[in-house]
Amino acid sequence: MSKKDKIIIVGAGLCGTLLGLRLAQRGYKVTLHERRGDMRLEDVDAGRSINLALSARGLRALEKVGIKADILEECIPMKGRMIHPLQGESFFSAYSGRSGDYINSVSRGGLNIALLDAADKFDDVQVVFDSKCERVDLENAKATFKNLKTGETYEEEGAVVIGTDGAGSSVRRSIMGRTTQLLFNFSQSFLRHGYKELSILPAEDGGWRIEKNALHIWPRGSFMIIALPNLDGSFTVTMFHPFGGENGFDNLNTKEKVKAFFEKEFPTLIPYMPHYVEEYFENPVGTLGTIKCYPWQAFGKTLIMGDAAHAIVPFYGQGMNAAFEDVSVFDEILDQYEGDWLKILETFQDARVDNANAIADLAIDNFTEMQDKVDDRDFKRKRQLEMQLEQKYEDYYSKYSLVTFRPDLPYADAMSLGRKQDDLLLKLCAEKEPSEMNLDEVMKQIVALQ
Amino acid sequence: MSKKDKIIIVGAGLCGTLLGLRLAQRGYKVTLHERRGDMRLEDVDAGRSINLALSARGLRALEKVGIKADILEECIPMKGRMIHPLQGESFFSAYSGRSGDYINSVSRGGLNIALLDAADKFDDVQVVFDSKCERVDLENAKATFKNLKTGETYEEEGAVVIGTDGAGSSVRRSIMGRTTQLLFNFSQSFLRHGYKELSILPAEDGGWRIEKNALHIWPRGSFMIIALPNLDGSFTVTMFHPFGGENGFDNLNTKEKVKAFFEKEFPTLIPYMPHYVEEYFENPVGTLGTIKCYPWQAFGKTLIMGDAAHAIVPFYGQGMNAAFEDVSVFDEILDQYEGDWLKILETFQDARVDNANAIADLAIDNFTEMQDKVDDRDFKRKRQLEMQLEQKYEDYYSKYSLVTFRPDLPYADAMSLGRKQDDLLLKLCAEKEPSEMNLDEVMKQIVALQ
Repeated sequence: MSKKDKIIIVGAGLCGTLLGLRLAQRGYKVTLHERRGDMRLEDVDAGRSINLALSARGLRALEKVGIKADILEECIPMKGRMIHPLQGESFFSAYSGRSGDYINSVSRGGLNIALLDAADKFDDVQVVFDSKCERVDLENAKATFKNLKTGETYEEEGAVVIGTDGAGSSVRRSIMGRTTQLLFNFSQSFLRHGYKELSILPAEDGGWRIEKNALHIWPRGSFMIIALPNLDGSFTVTMFHPFGGENGFDNLNTKEKVKAFFEKEFPTLIPYMPHYVEEYFENPVGTLGTIKCYPWQAFGKTLIMGDAAHAIVPFYGQGMNAAFEDVSVFDEILDQYEGDWLKILETFQDARVDNANAIADLAIDNFTEMQDKVDDRDFKRKRQLEMQLEQKYEDYYSKYSLVTFRPDLPYADAMSLGRKQDDLLLKLCAEKEPSEMNLDEVMKQIVALQ
Repeated sequence: MSKKDKIIIVGAGLCGTLLGLRLAQRGYKVTLHERRGDMRLEDVDAGRSINLALSARGLRALEKVGIKADILEECIPMKGRMIHPLQGESFFSAYSGRSGDYINSVSRGGLNIALLDAADKFDDVQVVFDSKCERVDLENAKATFKNLKTGETYEEEGAVVIGTDGAGSSVRRSIMGRTTQLLFNFSQSFLRHGYKELSILPAEDGGWRIEKNALHIWPRGSFMIIALPNLDGSFTVTMFHPFGGENGFDNLNTKEKVKAFFEKEFPTLIPYMPHYVEEYFENPVGTLGTIKCYPWQAFGKTLIMGDAAHAIVPFYGQGMNAAFEDVSVFDEILDQYEGDWLKILETFQDARVDNANAIADLAIDNFTEMQDKVDDRDFKRKRQLEMQLEQKYEDYYSKYSLVTFRPDLPYADAMSLGRKQDDLLLKLCAEKEPSEMNLDEVMKQIVALQ
């Protein structure tokens, strides 16, 4: 019986640590190898965004492992988008017509530490830091690691190796090395935009300088800035910005140019960000890529999961939620097929790959929506109509709500239905104001789409 | 002035050797590095198909370098497809209604040798065999090679490095290693079918056992066999066949199974292939993949071309033709911008990438057409209608003809117009026989599509 099989997990980020915790709860021996140091003891640069939006799919997985309530205490609810146009007043746009449906700003580091602490409590969980995966012997579930502090190289063999080592996955590289044998399909595609983080400081009284319970957007057509609240009163600000062009990252290369650009495009933000010019030059520019691939498993012995299998752009706030949902689905498949790893790994990839592709495509769609559409007349009408429909009809969910607040619905189904609804509502909103519409008639047309 | 710049070409296959020849004709110093041995002196296994279909786009490039007439003497014209259904009579389907429009079966090895011989005549061309590219220093046009016979490693620096080293390109791997800096988009996708080569022997009198001037197809729905004629009276036979399933390659693993399968599916072929069972077990199974990527150039110093930039499946007979067209287009861009390598490389990739993507997609479409549609009622009607239209109207070209016989028309334009025409004609052919149609009326509708 496999109950005490040893599982080697490569990557102790959010997905890998949650997976390790869940497998330990199920009685497996788990070794978690993490390339970086222990973030509880040292300042490790994760090289990634400081806070994230945690929503229903992710919460469902945290509930499974019993830490949902603890984590929610450390979150700031974001009830909707606060839109800051260049001209005119800022306005609020709720995420849902249902008051209980909101997303949560959470610290990436804080959440990772909570997961590590929970996993560490199990005797059968071993976490090895500074341990870089060099390669995986796919058929034999044997991984070779190098300790980045001592230089020592060592092998570890388990029943299965699971790579949760992110977009640049080393486990995936070993699968890619067997391309023709595995007929490994792979794509990586990058936006011509990158991102850079800045910060809004807390108010002098320790409070929040702008609305706390919102995700803020400064949409500017071909670029934008967003901000998510932190517990200490600060906001993490992210510029999503083209690399090229007159005002692209590559060309905004002097203090004068950066100041002139912000003064023209983001004048209302400047008072909240006293150090933005220094931060602009200190902080790196990150890339925004989508990775799709198939298969995710090899020989019933090696699997990739989370960003390693399906990295997406951040514009739907679903990267972490999708990775956590992977863990929930994997757990359900274990319920069915425990003991038969080949069956488990094949069932998992086939259950997830279409859904991972769907959220990847939705996230690209939302990039355009956030930077260019949120301030558009018909789009605003559509959001208003969606709110009214969600308030009035129990069975109605907007595309955003289908993706974000319906963990029972696979991403692919949410995409398919959501896109049809969007097409219909945008057509109606091009003709008239929601106030002039008969909601019952609209709802009939929506039901007919399903 | 750049006239005597040194160009390092990685890969002396069809594309690289043609490019080297053309650049030598323009006055450049050229070094061609080839991983394999000299095919004129030793038997090198190219691991790829023995004969290929040479058509107008490829011929245009050969004309530029002055060897078109010589090569055509070594070709066998294929005027159309000879279709061999499992039930019923074999029938011929011409490629075009114009008698001068046909494709040519040519030996890969013979063509490559002719190109090598032509390039070797130039003092400024150096061909280095057994020379494997290890990596490219992209910014400095410096490549590191290893001699596979001596083990020696050496560097060479030029004005530009051009990788024509095929689907598994080492130059592309160096570009991919700089993914985030170059925002390198890349996809590889494999069919779940592979291919295996067999052969039809010459007749006892040295002639051809089946129609010489045709590309033969035995379509069987989810798999097929094709055959192309060789000068010696033999045919190179290729099975395009799924890996998986009851009768897939993976399961056809005993002599009994292979014989039973051929007796059921290809009974009329067996008499022509006395050694097919032995060949089946001796010859490898190849994979069928599509590779798309962007950018193709880095820093105005390194470029990939041909299969290295855009590998496609063989079902349109356009892989080599597309690679040769790359050389034609590169040559035209040199006419415009000679001296400015950054401009040349950027202009080249931007001129070619959409066209390479188009022929990749068309080749996938043709996979379905060849194995499943050529024997279909409406498809046969459409081919008949297309022939009549091509005979009657000077300006009309079917999709196949637009792609194959119109080198003046970029692939992307051929795809766009060709697909529209296909949709229209298939709709008409679902309703009636071409003999019941008014051709002038049909032609009016076609012109309206443009």
